[in-house]
Amino acid sequence: MTDLNAVLTNADGDFDNSLGRLFQLVRIPSISTDPAHNADCETAARTIVADLKSLGFEAELRETPGRPMVVAHYTPKTATKSTPHLLFYGHYDVQPADPLDLWNTPPFEPVRKKDPDGVERMYGRGTADDKGQFMTFVEAARAWITTTGSLPIKATFLIEGEEESGSPSLVPFLKANKAELSCDAAFVCDTNMWDARTPAITTRLRGLVHEEITITGPSIDLHSGLYGGPAMNPIRVLTKVIAALHDKNGKVTIPGFYDGVADLPKATMKQWQSLKFSEAKFLKEVGLKQPAGEKGKSVLEQVWARPTAEVNGIWGGYTGAGTKTVLPSKAHAKLTFRLVGKQNPQKILKAFQNMVKGLIPKDCKVEFSGRGGGSPATEIPEDNPWIARSAKALKDEWRRDAVLMGSGGSIPICRFFKDILGMDSVLVGFGLNDDAIHSPNEKYNLSSYQRGIRSWVRIMDELGK
Amino acid sequence: MTDLNAVLTNADGDFDNSLGRLFQLVRIPSISTDPAHNADCETAARTIVADLKSLGFEAELRETPGRPMVVAHYTPKTATKSTPHLLFYGHYDVQPADPLDLWNTPPFEPVRKKDPDGVERMYGRGTADDKGQFMTFVEAARAWITTTGSLPIKATFLIEGEEESGSPSLVPFLKANKAELSCDAAFVCDTNMWDARTPAITTRLRGLVHEEITITGPSIDLHSGLYGGPAMNPIRVLTKVIAALHDKNGKVTIPGFYDGVADLPKATMKQWQSLKFSEAKFLKEVGLKQPAGEKGKSVLEQVWARPTAEVNGIWGGYTGAGTKTVLPSKAHAKLTFRLVGKQNPQKILKAFQNMVKGLIPKDCKVEFSGRGGGSPATEIPEDNPWIARSAKALKDEWRRDAVLMGSGGSIPICRFFKDILGMDSVLVGFGLNDDAIHSPNEKYNLSSYQRGIRSWVRIMDELGK
Repeated sequence: MTDLNAVLTNADGDFDNSLGRLFQLVRIPSISTDPAHNADCETAARTIVADLKSLGFEAELRETPGRPMVVAHYTPKTATKSTPHLLFYGHYDVQPADPLDLWNTPPFEPVRKKDPDGVERMYGRGTADDKGQFMTFVEAARAWITTTGSLPIKATFLIEGEEESGSPSLVPFLKANKAELSCDAAFVCDTNMWDARTPAITTRLRGLVHEEITITGPSIDLHSGLYGGPAMNPIRVLTKVIAALHDKNGKVTIPGFYDGVADLPKATMKQWQSLKFSEAKFLKEVGLKQPAGEKGKSVLEQVWARPTAEVNGIWGGYTGAGTKTVLPSKAHAKLTFRLVGKQNPQKILKAFQNMVKGLIPKDCKVEFSGRGGGSPATEIPEDNPWIARSAKALKDEWRRDAVLMGSGGSIPICRFFKDILGMDSVLVGFGLNDDAIHSPNEKYNLSSYQRGIRSWVRIMDELGK
Repeated sequence: MTDLNAVLTNADGDFDNSLGRLFQLVRIPSISTDPAHNADCETAARTIVADLKSLGFEAELRETPGRPMVVAHYTPKTATKSTPHLLFYGHYDVQPADPLDLWNTPPFEPVRKKDPDGVERMYGRGTADDKGQFMTFVEAARAWITTTGSLPIKATFLIEGEEESGSPSLVPFLKANKAELSCDAAFVCDTNMWDARTPAITTRLRGLVHEEITITGPSIDLHSGLYGGPAMNPIRVLTKVIAALHDKNGKVTIPGFYDGVADLPKATMKQWQSLKFSEAKFLKEVGLKQPAGEKGKSVLEQVWARPTAEVNGIWGGYTGAGTKTVLPSKAHAKLTFRLVGKQNPQKILKAFQNMVKGLIPKDCKVEFSGRGGGSPATEIPEDNPWIARSAKALKDEWRRDAVLMGSGGSIPICRFFKDILGMDSVLVGFGLNDDAIHSPNEKYNLSSYQRGIRSWVRIMDELGK
């Protein structure tokens, strides 16, 4: 038996334990956006450090002003100058689990379940995003080390704890540890497959910038009978602002919003058309029929190659049971803008703020409390050699060509790896569109986990050749 | 000394005891919306029954499916067929007192206090709304009976215990006791004066109808990166709906909304103009400068004589701390419409629902979950003889003309008295705008209580002539 086959056999034989280790992590509610869970984030980080140390990594919990990073290095005894050094990235923090009442099983009590469709899945917050994903390369490393005593490559693992809350500590950390973290390439495991049988490497990611606005009308909450009419209701103002963001063709109306957005190259459009993507099926899975983005653009273009303005939350006034005849003092909204091409996050924010200021009446105040920052879009050159090797390994495992695809999501770290550490990223993940990440009943298919581990075993082998 | 002057002298001489009796009632936390206080509501009702019996009323606690009613009748021995029979209405239940930490003194331990501005006030939940108010006519009756041995009129007192929780038992009770409760007119003591020196009779009340809408886009919450663009965001749809409710001149755009809304009669407009109401001061008190209602209408018209569409609450998506890149499945809003003239609550609801249905894309669903019902506006004819007599008595007491005013709020009982018992209502109250009813530190001016009692002594005298 070759090394590779022995490692794959070992990984398969140890799969129940791999699942147990993942469940142990999922049980830790490491929600980075909520300070009440700071200790849980630390517990998750310490658990990973201890596990990697047990495999022979030099692993450390590294403090930041926010949640800690896990940094771990592995250098094979036989390594030479030409042994490639690769960084593997994931994140141990998760999204909040609310609304809790929509979960079929408690979000932090993971379960393995054969569903009525015959597919085995695991359910729990973080099973897919991103604990289940990054554990695929951790388990692949374990299989290599326990089978052969070593890894075929030099590896650095970077597992952060602030990905779901904007990664505020990441850039300073990369800058401060530039020499230590600069590798030949970065592998990021936080993306999807094309479908449950077809692997994919993601080469386009949208950028992201957040904003939060608060509109204040009257200085205090008022009785809607005694003041309704003359007193300006800030909800009315806020809805005018939000409603003005899109025209009837689904285009964003912020002045200058599309500066830096190019039409899709003909070749790329042709490749995407060849994917035979079913728009109807994609929408039907989430209860929809009509694409809501820009008219004249395909659904894949709308998600992979066009920018958006989304309201992620809105609130104001009385939202409990029954009625309360209140005319509130304040109304709020949280927004995100997904960016493509050369759109500049700061310019977009500024243009949005100016538009809002122009829409609110003199009597109202508006505050912007987004944290600034944001990241532009990423496009990774498809002729990158690490992509070619990964694609070969993926084809060996899945017996299908890996699709080079886009993603509507944002993984700003690819940008930072390139700009700060000078390395390209290869995005290989095993998530599926129906994983319900960020939603109730988040799940990860057992096959994603098991064959994800096997895929990394093969990729590491290929990279080490 | 005439009877009237003797009764007024008696009332003044007994004022400290009047205050003591009111404080005894305020000490009972008769919060009708909270079942934990059911026994307190019964105690309050029994206290009032016992007091009225001691004055010679035939008084009874009358059970309902909810909190009990107090019904009491007084027929003077000298009464003839032409002696007018009048009903006096108030309510012994009060609003919850929370947030408790904002009260300067405990809400159910009433205190009398001279404030730094030299004005004497009493503080406590219910001092104004409505225990202090209805006790003004109870104390006036006491002064008449203890001084002259009788009342100058036939009187029925109806003191309910569910006004602050939607009066669910009221309509069935009025219907079941129609003969017993039908009088020549009803006097309701639950409204305000024009200002601390100027009495008022409220002749216009806006109607009210509630609605709640839920718009569903995708069947589940989605990741705004993976679906942002093609998936319709229900917040975007909801804001389009709400934003469409008002045009740029502050007019409500629902088709047929203004059917039954008449322009203000010239005479009424003239009277309101003569009030020298300071729009700037009214708005400045709540941090505003510009009237937000229909352009071309004065603030008093906007509150007293024009209908509104208000959003009392809006919510959808993630509203906690930090950010969540969710594209939600549902978005919600609670609305109220204040009605005037002959606007029909059911027609308004229907027109609103039709407008909403026309505005939402095919892919979205809308549900309406308002409780229906609602009450039209009340306008009491100002040539009503009971108003004229009451106005004369108020002028005698306060040495100023009583203002015939509107109220932007809704007191549905006037409608029920008219529709079920066939009698008009006269709304005379001694509250002030700064009484903080429904808020912490509710208060009632000593002058409101003392001269309120004196006012009812005079009104009863005038009515009996």
